Amino acid sequence: MPLPAPALTTEPGFEQRVRDSFGRQPAMTLIGAQLVRVVPGEVEVVLPYRREITQQHGFVHAGMIGAALDSACGYAALTVMPAGTGILTVEYKLNCLAPGVGERIRLVGRVRKPGRTILLVEGEALAVAADGAERLVATMTATEMTIRGRDGEIGRASCRERVYACV
Amino acid sequence: MPLPAPALTTEPGFEQRVRDSFGRQPAMTLIGAQLVRVVPGEVEVVLPYRREITQQHGFVHAGMIGAALDSACGYAALTVMPAGTGILTVEYKLNCLAPGVGERIRLVGRVRKPGRTILLVEGEALAVAADGAERLVATMTATEMTIRGRDGEIGRASCRERVYACV
Amino acid sequence: MPLPAPALTTEPGFEQRVRDSFGRQPAMTLIGAQLVRVVPGEVEVVLPYRREITQQHGFVHAGMIGAALDSACGYAALTVMPAGTGILTVEYKLNCLAPGVGERIRLVGRVRKPGRTILLVEGEALAVAADGAERLVATMTATEMTIRGRDGEIGRASCRERVYACV
Amino acid sequence: MPLPAPALTTEPGFEQRVRDSFGRQPAMTLIGAQLVRVVPGEVEVVLPYRREITQQHGFVHAGMIGAALDSACGYAALTVMPAGTGILTVEYKLNCLAPGVGERIRLVGRVRKPGRTILLVEGEALAVAADGAERLVATMTATEMTIRGRDGEIGRASCRERVYACV
Repeated sequence: MPLPAPALTTEPGFEQRVRDSFGRQPAMTLIGAQLVRVVPGEVEVVLPYRREITQQHGFVHAGMIGAALDSACGYAALTVMPAGTGILTVEYKLNCLAPGVGERIRLVGRVRKPGRTILLVEGEALAVAADGAERLVATMTATEMTIRGRDGEIGRASCRERVYACV
Repeated sequence: MPLPAPALTTEPGFEQRVRDSFGRQPAMTLIGAQLVRVVPGEVEVVLPYRREITQQHGFVHAGMIGAALDSACGYAALTVMPAGTGILTVEYKLNCLAPGVGERIRLVGRVRKPGRTILLVEGEALAVAADGAERLVATMTATEMTIRGRDGEIGRASCRERVYACV
Repeated sequence: MPLPAPALTTEPGFEQRVRDSFGRQPAMTLIGAQLVRVVPGEVEVVLPYRREITQQHGFVHAGMIGAALDSACGYAALTVMPAGTGILTVEYKLNCLAPGVGERIRLVGRVRKPGRTILLVEGEALAVAADGAERLVATMTATEMTIRGRDGEIGRASCRERVYACV
Repeated sequence: MPLPAPALTTEPGFEQRVRDSFGRQPAMTLIGAQLVRVVPGEVEVVLPYRREITQQHGFVHAGMIGAALDSACGYAALTVMPAGTGILTVEYKLNCLAPGVGERIRLVGRVRKPGRTILLVEGEALAVAADGAERLVATMTATEMTIRGRDGEIGRASCRERVYACV
């Protein structure tokens, strides 16, 4: 008997705000992560397998999975924020369940509990094999915090101030 | 009244085993992380600031910090393992405290509680400014699990088997 | 597109083993927690509202919710263990979402990923109002570890040895 | 090279505010937890061994340790808050390291990073044997959030509102 999904409110333009912000994350470009789906309360990122992101056994490094999943969770939170509001990750926990093998890793972040100040977001990382079979490789729970600023996201200067001031 | 540090046992060659394994992690090369210190129970990694590893405000992406700190914690655990034993990360939690700014991030992993099967490792990420001043930007607690294999580390095939079989 | 639920194997008598073990936890009796449902991979505990388990504002203390949910998660893991195997909690994380109010708290633990050595279990705490309405008050992710002993559970002496030796 | 301890500011009367609030937690009375030390940024609670708080092997139930440590961490945060401000636990993670045996468990919470909105607090649980020897049995990291209200703590009604509104 799962609870009904939480009621989520979004403002027009949320998808574009998420896509614009994701596009300004050089770290996601570096590791090859791509934003593939942005709907209210849920964001999906794909991380294609490349040797450059592996650890010593040829599996995708858990830290790379964590980084891409952190982005998926943060942007899932941003989908339910009003324009002019940003999101900061307060903490995340990653449980590693199986090695990151296959053609690509799908990273899905979903808002579990929205809130004015704090949001709980859950994530999962699924390894997709060449034949399409999926295996759960990691799960995440992330605490996100809202930051109110001037622009459609956290402006650099104001963020720096706000972050030092309040977190 | 902190407890005395845990008694740690290491086997000859632990530093070389850690350095060899770290050197075989393409993901660490990709993000520019360097292994700078390997002592019993403690490993330090440095992540120089580069635009490629930042998020949308020019701060080092929390996921990149998490990835480098995950490596520091895992290798801290490996320093106290006998030769022929490997380490798997079961889970880690990252608390983000301040933005990743400065010239470089120092990532220190320390074994808090060794064990035959499970080890608790704690990590911290410190942003170092141009004048050497340090600021705590994140902390980690990581659960590591030992894997016994044939070679000085987890062999690829055996790991795959073992991991699917036992984690 | 959630993944199919994990394939779980149970051995005859799992429900009785769980009920017997829960009945031997004086801490659950002290706080008034009752075991209400035991099925493969899932256990439900109920914690009726009593003033004795509250904090200073009359809400159920988050630590009481954490304790009952820890039991629900640990016993969910035990449902999929063979007879003669025990479970140890390696770690759990509790995210607190809303105050523990209402007539009772339902605590549900579900195995998310079974394994030979490590299991990931997820839990949720739901506050139930007098009219039956439910509100999510907390979530948990727990890492459980299997212990192989002689009897249907972890025997006291052997556990003590095993625990000190291996965790 | 640990960082210097964080600079902490307290307001007169912090100890009394903490002691008054702890005294109004029936759950702590139920499990026998006692507040023994309140200094800026640090609080110590003691949980004497009693059969009533054990699990099935006679060890103190990990959930009881988690509950008392959650209180120690929350009150450590309260020591550095101005009068009229309250604290909510956003999340905590408990790593279980050894069974809760001995005469009593000492639970120490320490502010690791203060902040205007979010505080990171670390905790440890130490089992004390009859001869005074101590063993680390669990560690905690807790995210605490400040709530500004009217009275020296979170007033019941305002808390209820505030909590539902903002977390």
